[in-house]
Amino acid sequence: MTRTLIRNGLVITASDELTADVLIEDEKVVALADAAVAESWTADTVIDATGMYVVPGGVDAHTHMQMPFGGTTAADTFETGTRAAAWGGTTTIIDFAIQSVGGSLREGLDAWHAKAAGNCAIDYAFHMILADVNESSLKEMEALVGEGVTSFKLFMAYPGVFYSDDGKILRALQKGAETGGLIMMHAENGIAIDVLVEQALAKGHTDPRYHGEVRHALLEAEATHRAIKLAQVAGAPIYIVHLSATQALAQVAAARDEGYNAFAETCPQYLFLSTDDLARPGFEGAKYVCSTPLRPAEHQAALWRGLRTDDLSVVSTDHCPFCFKGQKDMGIGDFSKIPNGLPGVETRMDLLHQGVVDGHISRRRWIEIASATPAKMFGLYPRKGTIAPGADADIVVYDPTATQVHSAQTHHMAVDYSCYEGRETTGKVRTVLSRGRVIVDAGEYRGSAGDGRFLTRDTCQYLR
Amino acid sequence: MTRTLIRNGLVITASDELTADVLIEDEKVVALADAAVAESWTADTVIDATGMYVVPGGVDAHTHMQMPFGGTTAADTFETGTRAAAWGGTTTIIDFAIQSVGGSLREGLDAWHAKAAGNCAIDYAFHMILADVNESSLKEMEALVGEGVTSFKLFMAYPGVFYSDDGKILRALQKGAETGGLIMMHAENGIAIDVLVEQALAKGHTDPRYHGEVRHALLEAEATHRAIKLAQVAGAPIYIVHLSATQALAQVAAARDEGYNAFAETCPQYLFLSTDDLARPGFEGAKYVCSTPLRPAEHQAALWRGLRTDDLSVVSTDHCPFCFKGQKDMGIGDFSKIPNGLPGVETRMDLLHQGVVDGHISRRRWIEIASATPAKMFGLYPRKGTIAPGADADIVVYDPTATQVHSAQTHHMAVDYSCYEGRETTGKVRTVLSRGRVIVDAGEYRGSAGDGRFLTRDTCQYLR
Amino acid sequence: MTRTLIRNGLVITASDELTADVLIEDEKVVALADAAVAESWTADTVIDATGMYVVPGGVDAHTHMQMPFGGTTAADTFETGTRAAAWGGTTTIIDFAIQSVGGSLREGLDAWHAKAAGNCAIDYAFHMILADVNESSLKEMEALVGEGVTSFKLFMAYPGVFYSDDGKILRALQKGAETGGLIMMHAENGIAIDVLVEQALAKGHTDPRYHGEVRHALLEAEATHRAIKLAQVAGAPIYIVHLSATQALAQVAAARDEGYNAFAETCPQYLFLSTDDLARPGFEGAKYVCSTPLRPAEHQAALWRGLRTDDLSVVSTDHCPFCFKGQKDMGIGDFSKIPNGLPGVETRMDLLHQGVVDGHISRRRWIEIASATPAKMFGLYPRKGTIAPGADADIVVYDPTATQVHSAQTHHMAVDYSCYEGRETTGKVRTVLSRGRVIVDAGEYRGSAGDGRFLTRDTCQYLR
Amino acid sequence: MTRTLIRNGLVITASDELTADVLIEDEKVVALADAAVAESWTADTVIDATGMYVVPGGVDAHTHMQMPFGGTTAADTFETGTRAAAWGGTTTIIDFAIQSVGGSLREGLDAWHAKAAGNCAIDYAFHMILADVNESSLKEMEALVGEGVTSFKLFMAYPGVFYSDDGKILRALQKGAETGGLIMMHAENGIAIDVLVEQALAKGHTDPRYHGEVRHALLEAEATHRAIKLAQVAGAPIYIVHLSATQALAQVAAARDEGYNAFAETCPQYLFLSTDDLARPGFEGAKYVCSTPLRPAEHQAALWRGLRTDDLSVVSTDHCPFCFKGQKDMGIGDFSKIPNGLPGVETRMDLLHQGVVDGHISRRRWIEIASATPAKMFGLYPRKGTIAPGADADIVVYDPTATQVHSAQTHHMAVDYSCYEGRETTGKVRTVLSRGRVIVDAGEYRGSAGDGRFLTRDTCQYLR
Repeated sequence: MTRTLIRNGLVITASDELTADVLIEDEKVVALADAAVAESWTADTVIDATGMYVVPGGVDAHTHMQMPFGGTTAADTFETGTRAAAWGGTTTIIDFAIQSVGGSLREGLDAWHAKAAGNCAIDYAFHMILADVNESSLKEMEALVGEGVTSFKLFMAYPGVFYSDDGKILRALQKGAETGGLIMMHAENGIAIDVLVEQALAKGHTDPRYHGEVRHALLEAEATHRAIKLAQVAGAPIYIVHLSATQALAQVAAARDEGYNAFAETCPQYLFLSTDDLARPGFEGAKYVCSTPLRPAEHQAALWRGLRTDDLSVVSTDHCPFCFKGQKDMGIGDFSKIPNGLPGVETRMDLLHQGVVDGHISRRRWIEIASATPAKMFGLYPRKGTIAPGADADIVVYDPTATQVHSAQTHHMAVDYSCYEGRETTGKVRTVLSRGRVIVDAGEYRGSAGDGRFLTRDTCQYLR
Repeated sequence: MTRTLIRNGLVITASDELTADVLIEDEKVVALADAAVAESWTADTVIDATGMYVVPGGVDAHTHMQMPFGGTTAADTFETGTRAAAWGGTTTIIDFAIQSVGGSLREGLDAWHAKAAGNCAIDYAFHMILADVNESSLKEMEALVGEGVTSFKLFMAYPGVFYSDDGKILRALQKGAETGGLIMMHAENGIAIDVLVEQALAKGHTDPRYHGEVRHALLEAEATHRAIKLAQVAGAPIYIVHLSATQALAQVAAARDEGYNAFAETCPQYLFLSTDDLARPGFEGAKYVCSTPLRPAEHQAALWRGLRTDDLSVVSTDHCPFCFKGQKDMGIGDFSKIPNGLPGVETRMDLLHQGVVDGHISRRRWIEIASATPAKMFGLYPRKGTIAPGADADIVVYDPTATQVHSAQTHHMAVDYSCYEGRETTGKVRTVLSRGRVIVDAGEYRGSAGDGRFLTRDTCQYLR
Repeated sequence: MTRTLIRNGLVITASDELTADVLIEDEKVVALADAAVAESWTADTVIDATGMYVVPGGVDAHTHMQMPFGGTTAADTFETGTRAAAWGGTTTIIDFAIQSVGGSLREGLDAWHAKAAGNCAIDYAFHMILADVNESSLKEMEALVGEGVTSFKLFMAYPGVFYSDDGKILRALQKGAETGGLIMMHAENGIAIDVLVEQALAKGHTDPRYHGEVRHALLEAEATHRAIKLAQVAGAPIYIVHLSATQALAQVAAARDEGYNAFAETCPQYLFLSTDDLARPGFEGAKYVCSTPLRPAEHQAALWRGLRTDDLSVVSTDHCPFCFKGQKDMGIGDFSKIPNGLPGVETRMDLLHQGVVDGHISRRRWIEIASATPAKMFGLYPRKGTIAPGADADIVVYDPTATQVHSAQTHHMAVDYSCYEGRETTGKVRTVLSRGRVIVDAGEYRGSAGDGRFLTRDTCQYLR
Repeated sequence: MTRTLIRNGLVITASDELTADVLIEDEKVVALADAAVAESWTADTVIDATGMYVVPGGVDAHTHMQMPFGGTTAADTFETGTRAAAWGGTTTIIDFAIQSVGGSLREGLDAWHAKAAGNCAIDYAFHMILADVNESSLKEMEALVGEGVTSFKLFMAYPGVFYSDDGKILRALQKGAETGGLIMMHAENGIAIDVLVEQALAKGHTDPRYHGEVRHALLEAEATHRAIKLAQVAGAPIYIVHLSATQALAQVAAARDEGYNAFAETCPQYLFLSTDDLARPGFEGAKYVCSTPLRPAEHQAALWRGLRTDDLSVVSTDHCPFCFKGQKDMGIGDFSKIPNGLPGVETRMDLLHQGVVDGHISRRRWIEIASATPAKMFGLYPRKGTIAPGADADIVVYDPTATQVHSAQTHHMAVDYSCYEGRETTGKVRTVLSRGRVIVDAGEYRGSAGDGRFLTRDTCQYLR
């Protein structure tokens, strides 16, 4: 048995802040105590966290490691991507396994297990993307819930690729209500967007900034409303992914005011970046192409407000990086060919802490939206998302006053640019423990590929 | 040093549920640990909580012990009322000290200190009722915040008694914004209500049920909206007390959707009772006369929904009991003479647990609305409202499966009736600790008057 | 030149009520005057309207004469249907010409011209149903606007028949914005409904009342919201046909509050009938099968309110009758096979007058929603919809105090049942003039097939 | 008998536009006819309106001629003010008679009759300001309704002057519901505003622009909401005067969406002026001091939208002019001493026509909000507000293409400045008839003081 003791830090959870020592035995937290009690404890490793925050490791509920998209593949492998996550204080990811059209869920899930197994720096789980809703795949949902893949993503965008029509969505929602599987929705009206894409290109509007214009905020709002109504008809909860538009947030808020179980996540890019970035000169804007797209800067305040009032429940990254050279440049002369996605798995915890520094959210709310709620929403609680006896010892010792300058030169994601190049933020990870082992400490990576294990998940715990 | 150990219970806080042992030294929680670690601990007292919930003691942020009202005095003294609270699993109350018209805050506060000191079974704090807003009392607010009385209640109802006009309210809100003192509002348009009272009596409508009719839900909604707008003009947060009408809730929800710091509490009576009770035959309805009044039963679902979606943040009791014989009967023949108020300090935790049993809220949310949020809202955290190293050992061992039948025969409040006479609920307090000492256990009261101490409070911690 | 004089009636238009005499020369109103001035006028025909209302003939903007649907054809021909309209005080219909899938607008329009020409009792115009939106049919829209077919209906329901996907809808809306052609929308999510239909039938739910259950009010609200958002993206106004659900009305009202040009019509069946009718015993409910379906009776008050506050602009009939015997009975054992549609062209003016009698709307509003606004909305003004010099002399002399009992025995529609069998209403058409000629008078039909002419319409005049 | 004929103009009413000739006998319109019919008519006076609009004279439902305010008196007498109105195409005003505190309605009304009688250029009526709501004045309301003073204004602003508390307002609304008298509300929270005034002055904020800051838009929204709720409790309709803030409009719109009879007027100054004017350098801003105050320019679009969607029903002027020299300058060094009010009775019709030119509203809507609806709202219809047989021949021949530059040099109001000095608008009054007599023609005033008669009004006709 290995014992680790973290002394003198400020332990922060979703609801509490307390100065306490944390005792870890092997992989688990076994005790929290005040210094006087903890004094008598012996440990193999003692970490002095004086002046530091001691927080549950981040749970990033939305990543796409080495995902095939538009003829290329997201630049981070499970190995590089999860290592970068660890560097950034995230100790769990939930990635998306993908069903092929014509294929089974099982085949898709197996393929993703094969990619991830033995390669991850931190624990991981899978959502399942339903690209082909039919009698057979609906039936499979039940089995997957049984083996810990308890959430299913559908797309109202990307016709011909991932797109499901409203009938398929309704059936999946009904099956979700029946099995407890939570339906996650990419809510953009892709059918209408594709018309606008075609018209923009026909007018010679080929620059990256048109990506933002054709993916109209009203078409995100529309799809969000539609998803919620279909969920209501099915009697199912729904979780909207990567919400970026004020108007879409208003739809979620309205549903919640009426008591419906509609949840939404946003991402750091929508809180810190805008269409100004997408309109950067030359082809630079391609670095900021993702879907839903960045919005005008005035949307940011509404999203922070939504986080504060709990109309937005979670902040994930939608991490899906493509290199500027060799990948993003596939879309020179045609924005619709730019691979959609941004790097972000490493920077989420820091950017949200900057939100604390800037007064947008409290420290407890930081942990709630970044660790505790994603863990509960996706059935990982109490293993993940808190620091308490019995929980996995996924813990970050965080220095709230250290500053850092973000840069592709120094980040650990396998991508040749940073969305936040040159931006300074306050707060920085010092030490990261994954199931009791120190994997990052004082600027050194001490883990290895394969440390991370697959997590079978319970169904959504947020509603209990 | 006295050590107490609570073993094998399910510890529930606002965000966590974990099987853990809780170690207490003297008045404080000093450690939470799993059984293996705790095995080595010795203790003077060991409480076996197998099969039990171990929860933070309730914080009732709205009580009126021995309050003078309409020519009589609320039936519970600080001694009887706080003892009844303890019986019901509440270990902190925040009562209201009252400024007299023409008097100073200091005089009012001193008078309430005199009533409470040496008499309380549990810890207590004070809000201050501002009955006479003027230059001098506004100035005093600052001093009171400095000595731990950090919240101030105003009334839009009761003209000629507690009523403040909108100018006074605005000034108090501005002073609140300046000092950090949180303004609490009784939001009913008392000026308009008094017209309806006069008209009802003139028509011979003297029965208790007319109390509900004249205190129109729209006049609660109106005042709630007005209070929020005045708070916005002042740049201050606001806390609406005893919200009972769907339409008033909609006002709070709308303000919160726009990001304003508007908070509200409701009370168990609005969740479990209705105008049907107020309309009971004979004078029986007088037992249910309180302000804001009970509403038609369909409002209950909206209030539960508000609790679930956090548009309602707190459940307090507004405990203010008057005996049916000798007090309530002052209003025979004139409902406006019935003393306003219900008993409730003893039954809050149980009724809310019934809400868990009925599927309205989760266990964590139960603790959040009954203990954690009131503690944070009113600056008592982390002493009160959670179970964590450093917190006061105000702990309830709660039996979630025991049933009880509510009755004036068996309750401990000094009042001759129960609002829930004959009603069975599931869940029951087994053991109550106040700052580490067992004061209730297995049907026996083991504390004594004077155990409770006055708590100086920090300013509102909910917004940090 | 033929002169007709209507004396002593109360002339009612959308904005005015005045006691005046109306002088007609040939087909046109040429003067309104008070009795003293009119005294000097001579006329070939003098109609004494003492005690009567003199109102503009009704404009029914939504009829389907002899429309093919689900293997049968609506029972009223242009001859029988327009004659019935005349009996009921309606002097203009706008029927729907239908493009076949794979066919051109031109072919569809020609076919409908062929059906109507020489057969109509009253003037008629055409909207065009776009069943196949493509480059070619979009191009044709421009030509049709030029020849007086200035509105185009699309369907979000009926996949495989009339259904257009959101991309086609967006393109049609854009073309509408460009040409001035007004897009009309059947707003129900047909893709989702078809799933519910299949599931209902699989469960053995085959009775007519299931027609109402599968066509969920939320799926009307969803489609209404979607149509409005697509219109906003296209920069086009939109007109929602046969709105029946409170929730859909809320969507229109919200858009209008924000200043968007969203318009909607409802129909008398939604104001006077309900799911109670759809659930009549035996197969009787089939008489009430139409889409959007009848709703629970509590929706009626909301629709009247919408008419009063102008969130609903028009009342049309969606007249599309199928005989109970021989047509409706195609759906015995499978509600989805019941032809969708109700008779109504004859009863609209009377039922709306009953709304005046019942206090729901004013007399002026009656004329506004039944004559003036449809004429303006669809470019027929000032020929139709008012009584003023220069307007077509389409005039109804209406007896506001006569009563009638509705019955299939006495109505003039070619269908074997009445939706209002046995219901008594107050108010009754006495005399009807179509372009100056009396075609109905005192219970006698005096016109003949072919009296009615095709009307070329201007673009929407409501927004000028 | 005198006959006047207006030939060849475009007659515009609230619902119709038609090329017709208008025949007038003595004071009344007796016929409208097309040119062929009218050809035979002889007349004493023939007005050629070729190329002109022929519109009902304006009805200005909100003026304050020679009103005492804050130690001075509004600069226009009934003589000068009504003559200026005539110059601007307004042929009816409804002015406010004022009850003194301690005085009776009768005394107030008599005083106003004395001021107006024999002095007015156009017809006039009175609303009654209730400055002292008590048993006696409530009783008088009934009598006044009987003699044609059918609307009553209350103030939520101006404590100590016109202010009524919510109890008085409720009683007046109840009496309004009982008698048919329409309650008009100045909706600003004057109690709270007076606190902000005192604080602003204490800080040395004495310039005119602080008038706009202390009269906070949220305090207009608050009072508007409160007025509506009190009206709902009383079961009465309500009419909000001079609405200027987007947030107040939202309150009216919300009430109307729910079907409540809440009406509002705005004024041209809120559509064309803004806080930029109030902040003009030096003391210039005093020219723009009125209450409710001017708002930031972005409110204008919302108000135009409200006019278009009928959430705003009427545009009145609140004409209450004070000379810059000798009156407005009473407030140098203390904005709260600046008499509240602007000149406007002469410019309303032109400014609203500019709204037509700018595309904000249609021509018919122009007449609706400026003539027809005020006439119906206040019981003057059909005498006023339309052109139809039987109506008073209050008619304006309006040149839609003439331009004019507004200036104090050329206007006819008895005040030394124009709010629109130097502004050019398109459209200009050519000829004005009041009850059949030409009083303004081609730049010449041909009427005389005393032409105008007192109008007894019916109760509100808008709801029938």
